[in-house]
Amino acid sequence: MSSSDIFIGETIGTAVLILLGGGVCAAVTLKASKARNAGWLAIALGWGFAVMTAVYISAPLSGAHLNPAVTVALAIKDGDWSNVPVYFAGEFLGAMIGAALVWVAYYGQFQAHLTDEEIVGDRAAQATDAKAVEAREKGAGPVLGIFSTGPEIRNAVQNLATEIVGTFVLIIAVLTQGLNDTGNGLGVLGGLITALVVVSIGLSLGGPTGYAINPARDLGPRIVHALLPLPNKGGSDWTYAWVPVVGPLIGGALAAGVYNIAFA
Amino acid sequence: MSSSDIFIGETIGTAVLILLGGGVCAAVTLKASKARNAGWLAIALGWGFAVMTAVYISAPLSGAHLNPAVTVALAIKDGDWSNVPVYFAGEFLGAMIGAALVWVAYYGQFQAHLTDEEIVGDRAAQATDAKAVEAREKGAGPVLGIFSTGPEIRNAVQNLATEIVGTFVLIIAVLTQGLNDTGNGLGVLGGLITALVVVSIGLSLGGPTGYAINPARDLGPRIVHALLPLPNKGGSDWTYAWVPVVGPLIGGALAAGVYNIAFA
Amino acid sequence: MSSSDIFIGETIGTAVLILLGGGVCAAVTLKASKARNAGWLAIALGWGFAVMTAVYISAPLSGAHLNPAVTVALAIKDGDWSNVPVYFAGEFLGAMIGAALVWVAYYGQFQAHLTDEEIVGDRAAQATDAKAVEAREKGAGPVLGIFSTGPEIRNAVQNLATEIVGTFVLIIAVLTQGLNDTGNGLGVLGGLITALVVVSIGLSLGGPTGYAINPARDLGPRIVHALLPLPNKGGSDWTYAWVPVVGPLIGGALAAGVYNIAFA
Amino acid sequence: MSSSDIFIGETIGTAVLILLGGGVCAAVTLKASKARNAGWLAIALGWGFAVMTAVYISAPLSGAHLNPAVTVALAIKDGDWSNVPVYFAGEFLGAMIGAALVWVAYYGQFQAHLTDEEIVGDRAAQATDAKAVEAREKGAGPVLGIFSTGPEIRNAVQNLATEIVGTFVLIIAVLTQGLNDTGNGLGVLGGLITALVVVSIGLSLGGPTGYAINPARDLGPRIVHALLPLPNKGGSDWTYAWVPVVGPLIGGALAAGVYNIAFA
Repeated sequence: MSSSDIFIGETIGTAVLILLGGGVCAAVTLKASKARNAGWLAIALGWGFAVMTAVYISAPLSGAHLNPAVTVALAIKDGDWSNVPVYFAGEFLGAMIGAALVWVAYYGQFQAHLTDEEIVGDRAAQATDAKAVEAREKGAGPVLGIFSTGPEIRNAVQNLATEIVGTFVLIIAVLTQGLNDTGNGLGVLGGLITALVVVSIGLSLGGPTGYAINPARDLGPRIVHALLPLPNKGGSDWTYAWVPVVGPLIGGALAAGVYNIAFA
Repeated sequence: MSSSDIFIGETIGTAVLILLGGGVCAAVTLKASKARNAGWLAIALGWGFAVMTAVYISAPLSGAHLNPAVTVALAIKDGDWSNVPVYFAGEFLGAMIGAALVWVAYYGQFQAHLTDEEIVGDRAAQATDAKAVEAREKGAGPVLGIFSTGPEIRNAVQNLATEIVGTFVLIIAVLTQGLNDTGNGLGVLGGLITALVVVSIGLSLGGPTGYAINPARDLGPRIVHALLPLPNKGGSDWTYAWVPVVGPLIGGALAAGVYNIAFA
Repeated sequence: MSSSDIFIGETIGTAVLILLGGGVCAAVTLKASKARNAGWLAIALGWGFAVMTAVYISAPLSGAHLNPAVTVALAIKDGDWSNVPVYFAGEFLGAMIGAALVWVAYYGQFQAHLTDEEIVGDRAAQATDAKAVEAREKGAGPVLGIFSTGPEIRNAVQNLATEIVGTFVLIIAVLTQGLNDTGNGLGVLGGLITALVVVSIGLSLGGPTGYAINPARDLGPRIVHALLPLPNKGGSDWTYAWVPVVGPLIGGALAAGVYNIAFA
Repeated sequence: MSSSDIFIGETIGTAVLILLGGGVCAAVTLKASKARNAGWLAIALGWGFAVMTAVYISAPLSGAHLNPAVTVALAIKDGDWSNVPVYFAGEFLGAMIGAALVWVAYYGQFQAHLTDEEIVGDRAAQATDAKAVEAREKGAGPVLGIFSTGPEIRNAVQNLATEIVGTFVLIIAVLTQGLNDTGNGLGVLGGLITALVVVSIGLSLGGPTGYAINPARDLGPRIVHALLPLPNKGGSDWTYAWVPVVGPLIGGALAAGVYNIAFA
């Protein structure tokens, strides 16, 4: 694969991933969306099928990493770091484009939601308990959740541990997938299976932190949240931003290490 | 493929697509349906599996376009417009047949729903806010939603943008699918993966406009809504009807252009 | 395939189908079930995966018809009726065994539900409207729904039409599946795709009658309902019993006719 | 496969299975989880995709039994018990590791939930009916349900019957899967199909006992529940612990017997 194919594939693929992944969060969150309050199962399935769609679109060009934790793990596994920078560049650029496209697709819903007095009033009224006050001070409102993740209970060590565990499962599943391929179809089935692994992680390990399990998925859209002219958007919660970057990289590296010891 | 095979395949396939897709909307909307209020996830999965069923039925005859946006995108990609008219004819005829079959399958439910005083009364009572009044004046009641799509926030530019984005994702996924096929199974897996792409678009990008992403899916059933002898059915919202026709065609053409530049 | 393999395969397969299909209805209906009120999507997915499980178990022995409408359609398509009686025998016997196993697995829940004064009292209290009175007179209570189907609006012509349309979709999908098989995997993928077609029919066409789409699935368990010593079980609604037998057979025969004209 | 590959594969695979399976129970149960109250369908899908993820990770090393009932059934089918002890060891060790990892990922949620006065108070208030009193005396609170299963209606014969029926379906599906494999892909598709069989059993047969259908899945985490320093955790319900061990082993052995008679 040429560097330009990698860059274009990762940019398009990660843009589709975040457009669909951020899109389902917008769909269940925002006022005047037909899917409002569709529930956690809809979110977990929405992110999973977002991964599937993005994988099949980008696989022919770039092999569909779409996640710096995948890129790092494969570099460790193969001992080849030469293409890591171009993968990273495509992943972060794509994530930012995808987050901006969520804003395009849901522009009217963002405006209606963030200028609705009842919603703003509700948030103010709920702010008497300590957690809501803390979250508001840090800017972690529900609309930020359309862009990036945030913890239910704010504790850096704990949140880091959850992201490490979730990403470890994702990456060990991705790495071992090749071992199941006997030339009979897992190559083409891989995008679907990876999607369902992501659904599984969302359902099972997403409860505490919202399962970033991907540094580009979290940091790229957080930057876009900071840049977009959204009314009453609150802060972008930068004090938490390092956790969903560092945690997934550690989880991916650990999985590559276990793979090299136990499976290779 | 002969013209008659294409016409028959597209007619049967699109009829099944709209029967099942319109059917899930009827199932969750109408009084005296066992699936009433089953929620947005049921709608998104219902439309996705409708696509899957229709694709496998029509693929052997016509290649399963089922959507003028697919037909246009493939014509751009291949530079061959000779079969476009026969595809269009089958797609629109099939969509109208499918919508009529929804009415056949749910005939009693339509009658019970549309003559229920409480439902009619409810709608009248809710009509005090501006949006409900506007929707009623334009005829966009919930029963029209069984046939064709309508926006939550009525803004032509915005609604067009959402339909373009959604259709772009669908068509780029359809076009790149062939690149994943290494002769090992994606050919037969394609219908399932396309179905899950449609589920993804429904969950993630369906909130603002109800994701037509297919001109035949929207216009054909809208005509049938206008023709059917349903009591208290309201208008067919013709002022909106061009958006889910033009938006998907633009989205499909854009996807074909990106495909020819980046992937071909 | 030998006659004994067909009989054993159809008996085991249809028993598994009804155990899992009736089981999901028991799970969402009965008191003291962890899945109570899990909703229509759970029912539709439950029946679909029941079909998938039963197909893969019985396919190596009998080809996995599991449904007299499938057996009749294949006999019409192939012009060979010699094995029809043994298929029918296995299908009806298996359906009865499966329904009895639902009772074994949910024995305590049936007892708790049917002797609960509040549930019985509720039903009595609700009986003031005409439909509830009619249903009770005909014995169509919610517990019968664990065994066999019943219409929301009782109208033989209408109910027959809905069952014909639903079964037509199932059978045309089953018959055309072979045309997609290019020797690359649809043979083994078929059970999964058929399952998702059944999910689709459940979500989209199940609202009016509960989608029997299979004479054995409805009549076998109805007989078991009549025989089992359940307290306060009500009648078995024999006046409706012919509809989910005749409708699916007509739908299957129509699909075979269309297949022979358009696809063969 | 070497003994060390089997042991490592089963340990890692069963750890992933219980991490994701126990994880979804924690996600829907605990306070301050984003997935709280996501419902039974989320639980059934979560356990199913947990199985899928664990199968593809461990299959290359150990063949992915992950369940002593599978190990026993294959030993009966093949008449070879030599590797049974090493499979058992990996399965139980893995299950305990997985349960401990659930605690790691949801540490803050466990603490918040079990020290919440309203939750503790609620449980006390609800304790006036006989079942709640009995359950509390036996220690079967909702938090134990994150680790191991418990019956809605406590009746050893009945509960054993439900576990036997559910495990029979699982094991007969696993054993017959090989017969569908014509070298065209079911080998690689098997993990997905087995996952959906488990979803089916969860939706259809999980209502009465919570479908252990796997001795290691139940006993390993129960031991971990007894060992962990959780506040107000209640007892580990040891009087019930033998049912989800013995029932699945009987169900698996029965399925192997039926397989050897009818399918081999």
